[in-house]
Amino acid sequence: MTHASHDLTLADIARHLDVAFEGDANQPIRGLATLKEAAPDQVAFLANRAYLKDLATTKAAAVLLHPEHGKNCPVPRLEMTNPYLGYAKLSQLFDPLPVRDVLGVHPTAVVAEGVTLGVDVSIQAHAVIETGVVLGDRVVVGAGSIVGADSVIGESTRLHANVTVCHGVVIGKRGILQSGCVIGGDGFGFAHDGAKWHKIAQLGGVVMGDDVEVGSCSSIDRGALGDTVIGNDVKIDSQVQIAHNVTIGDHSALAGCVGIAGSTKVGKHCMLGGGVGLSGHLTICDGVQVTGMSLVTNSIHEPGVYSSGTGAMSNTQWRKNAVRFKQLDDIAKRLARMEKNQRAE
Amino acid sequence: MTHASHDLTLADIARHLDVAFEGDANQPIRGLATLKEAAPDQVAFLANRAYLKDLATTKAAAVLLHPEHGKNCPVPRLEMTNPYLGYAKLSQLFDPLPVRDVLGVHPTAVVAEGVTLGVDVSIQAHAVIETGVVLGDRVVVGAGSIVGADSVIGESTRLHANVTVCHGVVIGKRGILQSGCVIGGDGFGFAHDGAKWHKIAQLGGVVMGDDVEVGSCSSIDRGALGDTVIGNDVKIDSQVQIAHNVTIGDHSALAGCVGIAGSTKVGKHCMLGGGVGLSGHLTICDGVQVTGMSLVTNSIHEPGVYSSGTGAMSNTQWRKNAVRFKQLDDIAKRLARMEKNQRAE
Amino acid sequence: MTHASHDLTLADIARHLDVAFEGDANQPIRGLATLKEAAPDQVAFLANRAYLKDLATTKAAAVLLHPEHGKNCPVPRLEMTNPYLGYAKLSQLFDPLPVRDVLGVHPTAVVAEGVTLGVDVSIQAHAVIETGVVLGDRVVVGAGSIVGADSVIGESTRLHANVTVCHGVVIGKRGILQSGCVIGGDGFGFAHDGAKWHKIAQLGGVVMGDDVEVGSCSSIDRGALGDTVIGNDVKIDSQVQIAHNVTIGDHSALAGCVGIAGSTKVGKHCMLGGGVGLSGHLTICDGVQVTGMSLVTNSIHEPGVYSSGTGAMSNTQWRKNAVRFKQLDDIAKRLARMEKNQRAE
Repeated sequence: MTHASHDLTLADIARHLDVAFEGDANQPIRGLATLKEAAPDQVAFLANRAYLKDLATTKAAAVLLHPEHGKNCPVPRLEMTNPYLGYAKLSQLFDPLPVRDVLGVHPTAVVAEGVTLGVDVSIQAHAVIETGVVLGDRVVVGAGSIVGADSVIGESTRLHANVTVCHGVVIGKRGILQSGCVIGGDGFGFAHDGAKWHKIAQLGGVVMGDDVEVGSCSSIDRGALGDTVIGNDVKIDSQVQIAHNVTIGDHSALAGCVGIAGSTKVGKHCMLGGGVGLSGHLTICDGVQVTGMSLVTNSIHEPGVYSSGTGAMSNTQWRKNAVRFKQLDDIAKRLARMEKNQRAE
Repeated sequence: MTHASHDLTLADIARHLDVAFEGDANQPIRGLATLKEAAPDQVAFLANRAYLKDLATTKAAAVLLHPEHGKNCPVPRLEMTNPYLGYAKLSQLFDPLPVRDVLGVHPTAVVAEGVTLGVDVSIQAHAVIETGVVLGDRVVVGAGSIVGADSVIGESTRLHANVTVCHGVVIGKRGILQSGCVIGGDGFGFAHDGAKWHKIAQLGGVVMGDDVEVGSCSSIDRGALGDTVIGNDVKIDSQVQIAHNVTIGDHSALAGCVGIAGSTKVGKHCMLGGGVGLSGHLTICDGVQVTGMSLVTNSIHEPGVYSSGTGAMSNTQWRKNAVRFKQLDDIAKRLARMEKNQRAE
Repeated sequence: MTHASHDLTLADIARHLDVAFEGDANQPIRGLATLKEAAPDQVAFLANRAYLKDLATTKAAAVLLHPEHGKNCPVPRLEMTNPYLGYAKLSQLFDPLPVRDVLGVHPTAVVAEGVTLGVDVSIQAHAVIETGVVLGDRVVVGAGSIVGADSVIGESTRLHANVTVCHGVVIGKRGILQSGCVIGGDGFGFAHDGAKWHKIAQLGGVVMGDDVEVGSCSSIDRGALGDTVIGNDVKIDSQVQIAHNVTIGDHSALAGCVGIAGSTKVGKHCMLGGGVGLSGHLTICDGVQVTGMSLVTNSIHEPGVYSSGTGAMSNTQWRKNAVRFKQLDDIAKRLARMEKNQRAE
């Protein structure tokens, strides 16, 4: 399903990566593939030692690899110290979407009065741009997407189809919002009068930096008074929930199904595994990694890797152990008592 | 980003809260803020003792606080026994959305034949109202939102943009549905014939009471035969999944990423923390609180706070402990054996 | 897609199930209900022994049940060895949706040039079908749904309202996509250059087999190079996240809030409980069941039931035990030391 949008040669590829190569400069390159599956017009890459076994027999037009693996390569080599990064850079050449965008405003799109559009924007079918919105140059608003009043979207940001950006949201440059995500829905705030709830209108917004990606069906809620703040180069996967007034530091990455409760501050260069939950009002320092499905209920002040929970085992084995968890305090006390007795003997 | 939609004075604010004050009645009030950040035309509030330190230096136009904290306040006081509730009430005055709604049916909206519209409804761009729908007075249907056939939506309920209400759903008064939520998708029901699955058509609906809020991208599935029932004043956060035939009692609140399996009944005034999971066919009595990411597999018959799981620790420490979890039954048995031996000595 | 919103008799019902019965063939049947709630024009079913107590007093027009329970039935019997399957088959007769679909293309729908439409398709209000799409016969595209360029959707598949199918996705026959789900959003792939992230364009697609159902607000991400593959007869509930290049085998069922990380392969006839998380790059063999909210971090090579985690208890009891979890390795070592001492005595 990989397909080049226009004709590229091996020389073009090498030039894009700024690497030298020996081979047929005019060889057409029509896509990327793994070493094992690459056809003679595809470039493959070796970024993980586990696939070194596939190198000798690859049929790729060329291979992107680390210089130390170059000698067994049967086809032209594109040597880089970080071949995975090279793969990332090449992959963007073969993305079919950008070439397809039709510039301008689709006749069925609704653009309110008082909207400012940059040059070369693409506003697709049934999109709605409410009053006061500012779209930077080359912004793409996919079909059915809605940008609420007074929101500002930086240049070259793409909203895929059916995205919702609520009112008063600020999004930086080169952002990518996947379908179904909602930026700026109300945070979850209510005061209780002893009998029932009273809504706290969520008067803050969401401010997202440059180069932020948000996955499909993820929610980033607006702040109660101040803003929810997403730093630069933050990458957020699908099905993620970010509550009101959370702050995420630059370059952090959140895997699928992460949930972060209100007012928690996550530092820079953090990585949260899938399904991780952070309680509210915590501070997580820079450089913290949390493994999948862990629950963090206290602030973390030292960089490092953190975990909770227990891995799956057979249900029979698990039942026996899980019931003992409820006796754990008792077990610990009994053990201490025995130790005391033994010492006393 | 907080801004008043029309001109308010300190006297207006005090009147709205029904409290006395001393100060300049004509002082314009343009928003709310924390004690620390409030400008001279903003009202601040003190609802948490932790912020008492900021009171003496606040520049707010007035402060909403408990009478016992009044004496150190350098600016006009608005005294209430529940200042957080006062903040909630004031916050609604500054919500920019309601003033912006354009009444009537947007020319691009599709309203089928046989629809009943109350007075002062606002049906925004590209919304779709299918046949047989009844919308009460002052209902707002945001851009791109869809209301399925025969659904009934009570007065003053707001659907934000890109909401989906499926067919045959009943929603009460003053509800708020955040963007991307889906009310009345099919429940997950299949019969297995030994080889493959057969779909059970989900013939029930969803019935939601008054004053219900549903967060962005949340799902409330329709019932298999009877209805899924959400009580009055139930507050549901983002990314929540409520399966078919679940019942949620009045005034309960469900935080983000909660999942409730089929036919479970949750009582009144319950609070489920973020990421909590309830198994199917359970009964949870009134007044139960479950802390974040807990798994509940049995019915709960006593009000109180319930929890499961373990909090995060360093990965190194965690690895050592988690592996022991698999030995827990063995540890318990060995301990019991030692105790027996010791007693026998 | 047999459906009766029109008049059905008991004879029609029996013929649909291919079972004999004794009773009034002309009895009108207007719906299904439980034994307890069935009115005299509704058919009830007994599929769970727990409801046997309701049989003697049922007012149903007829009861679907196992032959062994037939003798106490006060009304006409429809005997089947799998009455739950019979209920599933009957339920489809009473689904109001199919009868309502208006065939053809709604005037507000946008169908690009170069689209291939089968016979009797229904493309509803504000739907968008991008260029190169192929829709099979009887495909329904609900209001506000979007089908991206070059996607192919097999015959009799239904997209409910506000569904997003991204570009280059292949969906089989008789599929059902609930509202708000997103098929083919970008997988979560980035290369790090030591300072910042570089996006890996997700050049693969999603290939879904026949008879697949996807719940509301669920995400199935497209592959990085190859495709994300969903087998035949796979049933996926709401709020599920399936990452890039995952494979799900035929007939597997995933309950709500499941999250599966990249490149994991799930076998056939697997069942994942609500909130289960699977780490990336695992292999789960055929016939595996994982109970709710379990975390699976290793491949599973034997069919069976697997679990992790611990169930909820009172917060007071839990606090005492959870703190001991952090001492578990120490407890185990102290126990071993004591055993050694005891043996040495």
